[in-house]
Order: sequence, then C-alpha cells, then structure tokens
Amino acid sequence: MRIAVLGTGSVGQTIGSKLVSLGHDVKMGSRSATHEKASAWASEAGPRASLDTFAKSASFGELVFNCTYGRGSADVLTAAAPGLDGKVLIDTTNPLDFSNGFPPSLFTGGSDSLGEQAQRLLPNCKVVKALSHVTASVMVDPSSLAGGDHHALLCGNDVAAKQQVTKLLQEWFGWRSVLDLGDITASRGIESYVALWVRLMGQLGTASFNIKVVT
Amino acid sequence: MRIAVLGTGSVGQTIGSKLVSLGHDVKMGSRSATHEKASAWASEAGPRASLDTFAKSASFGELVFNCTYGRGSADVLTAAAPGLDGKVLIDTTNPLDFSNGFPPSLFTGGSDSLGEQAQRLLPNCKVVKALSHVTASVMVDPSSLAGGDHHALLCGNDVAAKQQVTKLLQEWFGWRSVLDLGDITASRGIESYVALWVRLMGQLGTASFNIKVVT
Repeated sequence: MRIAVLGTGSVGQTIGSKLVSLGHDVKMGSRSATHEKASAWASEAGPRASLDTFAKSASFGELVFNCTYGRGSADVLTAAAPGLDGKVLIDTTNPLDFSNGFPPSLFTGGSDSLGEQAQRLLPNCKVVKALSHVTASVMVDPSSLAGGDHHALLCGNDVAAKQQVTKLLQEWFGWRSVLDLGDITASRGIESYVALWVRLMGQLGTASFNIKVVT
Repeated sequence: MRIAVLGTGSVGQTIGSKLVSLGHDVKMGSRSATHEKASAWASEAGPRASLDTFAKSASFGELVFNCTYGRGSADVLTAAAPGLDGKVLIDTTNPLDFSNGFPPSLFTGGSDSLGEQAQRLLPNCKVVKALSHVTASVMVDPSSLAGGDHHALLCGNDVAAKQQVTKLLQEWFGWRSVLDLGDITASRGIESYVALWVRLMGQLGTASFNIKVVT
C-alpha cells in the first residue's frame, strides 16, 4: 500500500520504518521536499522509502499517519488538506505544552482535543485517533510489553475507518486488544491520559509502558 | 482509629462503611450535624458510625478522607480547616464539570488540580491524592477486579504520609500494587485520567474497572 507519514520525529521514523519493513511504499512528509531528517531516514529505510512536502506526501498516500508534534499539527494538516480528502488519517498527536518545562501540561483544555480539531479542519477526511498514548517503539511492537497483554485505544466518527485501523493495528503492528472508545470527541479522554503518562514515565524511569484495562 | 469521612455521596458511604466494618470509629461530615443522608448511613452502618458538621468531623478524625464532589471541595476544606491541621488528608475528589452534560469535562484546566488546591488551602495538612481514579466499590475492594492485579495511584508531598496511606490501601482495602507518582503536582496526571475513565466507562458499560500499568 502507498502510505504517507507526516512528520520526521521519532514517531514518524519508527512507524515509517516499520511500514517499509512490511513491504509498503512510504513517503515521509515534511516542510520541504529535501528535508535533512527525512532524507536521512529514507536513505536508511531502503528503496520503498521516499520523502516530499506535506502536501505531496498526503496526495501520495492511500492511508496517512499524522505524526507531527501537537503544536504544529493544524498547520501541517492545512498544508496537506487537498491530498487528504476522503482518506483515513491516523492521528497520533498529543497536545503537549512544554512552555513551563517538564512535566508538560496540555494546551487543548478540557473540552477540545487535537483529534477533534483535525476532524473539524478536514471534514471529508476520516480521522481516527490512535497510538498517541504509547511511545513510538511500543506503537509498532506492543508485544515488547507484557507479551502484548495491554490495550490500544482508538476513536473516530467513521465506523469503517475504525475497523480498518483496528485490523491494521492487529495485523501490521501486533496489537492483541484494541478498544474503540466511540466518536472523535473521545480524543479528549485519550489525549488527557497523556498528563498521567508523563507522570508514570517519571516514576517508572522508562517510556516503554502502557495500560491494560481490567474489569 | 478515629476517622472522618467528609461527604455523604457513594464514595463517602462506601469508604465509611468499609472502615466501620474494620472496627474503626467513623464520623461522616456534612453541611449539618443532622444531615439526612449521613443520618441514614450512620443508622445502617452501626454503633461505630456517627455524623457531625464538616468542622467537627475533621476535628474528630485522626485521619480524614475527602469524599466531597469536586466543585464543593474547596468550601468544605475551608470549613474543616482548623480540624485538619497536621493531619493526613486522603483526597479522592475529581474536577468533573457536568455543565455541558455527559461526558463531563475537567474544570481545573491542564496546569492545576484539586489535589494541589487542597494542599495550597491547607499548608499544614498532609494531602495524599488517592483512590480518585476508580469507582467507590473498587476503592475498598480492588480484588473484585482481575484478582486485584491492577494499580492504585497516589501522590503527595509528605513521604511518611504516603507510606501510611500505601499501608492503609494494602492492609485495609486489599490493594496489591500501589504506585507513588511523586509530589502533589502529580494530581494533575491522576485527575486528568478521569477524562479517559468516563470514556472507558461508556465503552465498557460499567464503572467497575481499573488500569494495570504494564512494562
């Protein structure tokens, strides 16, 4: 499949490399068609990896991952908008505000989220919030924790898009348990958890963890 | 031990009844010394259960549970302040804002929390944020879920107070795993999780659940 990964950070690189290793054609989108980090990634990831602008990468992808940092997400999606029409966008972003140092606060407040902002900005795009609650390495290799006995959380307005993403998480990345939390407003819940995540990271001394929901 | 429980809702009643069943003397604090719900609770819970105002209940307790609803917490703690000096206060509150219906948002924003507000309001009190992330029945009976294989989260500025609360959670309520997330500012993380909790409750169709942190 042709897949676009918007963003050149650790999330974009980790997801991009995993998708290439699975045989997909992956284009990493960034501010320029010759972005240094994207070029270095594409060289290392092999012939199925390429790079281009946000807009051209989005047009290339049959499926798109938004792996930008939270503060920049709206600008990136605006730039990429024409290429995202009708497509499934997997939104991995978090609204982290580091302006007062660590631990960060969330800049979206209690009654909005980046997932909802993306869906409002792109009404013809099928936004599925997913993967944002774990560190990059866990996103693509959940079996590295507790034999995979923990949960992926997702939400979105389009049922078929959520089914596609659920299957993708299971078959491509190896997630055993995927919890659908409802429509895109549930992004508030998923993104708010990140305020706990940063505290857990501080206590555990590692970013390689996740939660299992037990009943 | 003499214990005060501030608040007459399901959390106060459930914790109060459990403490009475363990042989403690429990006074339920409310707006009046003859509060209807507190009277009904005390009648049912037996001779070790009693009721009084917030102020007199706090003075009675060697240990105090804050089980008020979030919006009312500051007023209750102000009323009870003289009786809380030097004591350990276990804060179970959540900053839930139902003004826009369900699911609620959080009224504290991303850079404050009710745990911190309580500690600022009561500088000589040892505030320990705990139990706020599970429903009342799970607070006092964690073994009802997955054989108890999940986590209690707590935080606070006073190390000895946290050790006392940890022991209490383990020995009185049966919590097997207690995670100390650091100083009272970690209340932001614990309370923010509640925005996810309400979505999980909607999806799971029950409030009887919790999270296990896996590494």
